Amino acid sequence: MRIILIGAYGDIGQAALAELSQRHEVVRAGRTRGDILVDMADIASVQAMYDQAGTVDAVVCTAGEVHFGPLKDMTPDQMALGLQNKLMGQINLVMAGFDRIAPNGSFTLTSGVLDRDPIPLGTGAATANGALAGFVKGAAIEMPHSQRINVVSPGMLEVSAPRYGDWFRGHIPVSSAHVGLAYAKAVEGAGTGQVIIVA
Amino acid sequence: MRIILIGAYGDIGQAALAELSQRHEVVRAGRTRGDILVDMADIASVQAMYDQAGTVDAVVCTAGEVHFGPLKDMTPDQMALGLQNKLMGQINLVMAGFDRIAPNGSFTLTSGVLDRDPIPLGTGAATANGALAGFVKGAAIEMPHSQRINVVSPGMLEVSAPRYGDWFRGHIPVSSAHVGLAYAKAVEGAGTGQVIIVA
Repeated sequence: MRIILIGAYGDIGQAALAELSQRHEVVRAGRTRGDILVDMADIASVQAMYDQAGTVDAVVCTAGEVHFGPLKDMTPDQMALGLQNKLMGQINLVMAGFDRIAPNGSFTLTSGVLDRDPIPLGTGAATANGALAGFVKGAAIEMPHSQRINVVSPGMLEVSAPRYGDWFRGHIPVSSAHVGLAYAKAVEGAGTGQVIIVA
Repeated sequence: MRIILIGAYGDIGQAALAELSQRHEVVRAGRTRGDILVDMADIASVQAMYDQAGTVDAVVCTAGEVHFGPLKDMTPDQMALGLQNKLMGQINLVMAGFDRIAPNGSFTLTSGVLDRDPIPLGTGAATANGALAGFVKGAAIEMPHSQRINVVSPGMLEVSAPRYGDWFRGHIPVSSAHVGLAYAKAVEGAGTGQVIIVA
């Protein structure tokens, strides 16, 4: 398969890349580096990415920004960051991609643990993650061209623990290998409308 | 208790009102009618609502707009309607309400069935509903003043079936009495961070 991976250079992206690149051609896209540059929060930029990418069989997104901060002090704009970037950015990839990727192709998005196992400061992420689960469940029954859509929801990765472990106190870190397998299941399996949990 | 109910005149609002008004003083707020007028998508309007309302013990919201339409033709703006209104509108009520409602008070939001049992045309609603579940789970562990937060997720109401039944083909309608009880559980119970399903 030819796969476009948005967010290839993050910890989750690297895990997906290591697994998928064993068997597939992976085109890397990202906001600041990659084979193609894209700002997924901008639908025109996403359309330009598809123009450049040519035919792809699967879209995998491991990118998305949210604001982390105390609920009590959070402004509507801070809450909106996760909705505009992590959520609408990934939705843009799907909406602009229906007629760009192959029939029977797939979209695999990324959420995370915080809507099922919350941490302080994490409400923005919990909101975006829950929205992605709802989007995928709703969209799956209306996908055109027999396309599939799933979302991978990984716990904090072992490789991310040095940076994020203080925030995720008590969370059992997950291996990059297991995270990679979740993307393989989404891309190479047959499921749709699934939240694929890596715990 | 003194409760402010946003969206009192809809089918869900009427169900909540019928149950809660048996034991509590209910102040009705809404965009076009009610004791207080409020556009919950506008944080300044929400703040003005709290100014007018005076002390309340609980906030119940049964309002929220989303776009219904085919996934394939949905524009980012159409998807954003649910995020700006049903989602951010309800989040605004919470964020602006921490210091306005009583200590030990509660916020009860409303989502719906479509993120767990989707229908065609319903992806916008599924996305907003999933986001509300994530928000409530994330926010519950950071609520100030011992306040609680929950979301009621009702199926299609029996009274709504004449208008919406064609869209919800095969869904078992729920009674307004059961919907009302869910709001009683949220407001008068002790749970927090819960999605209270009425099925």
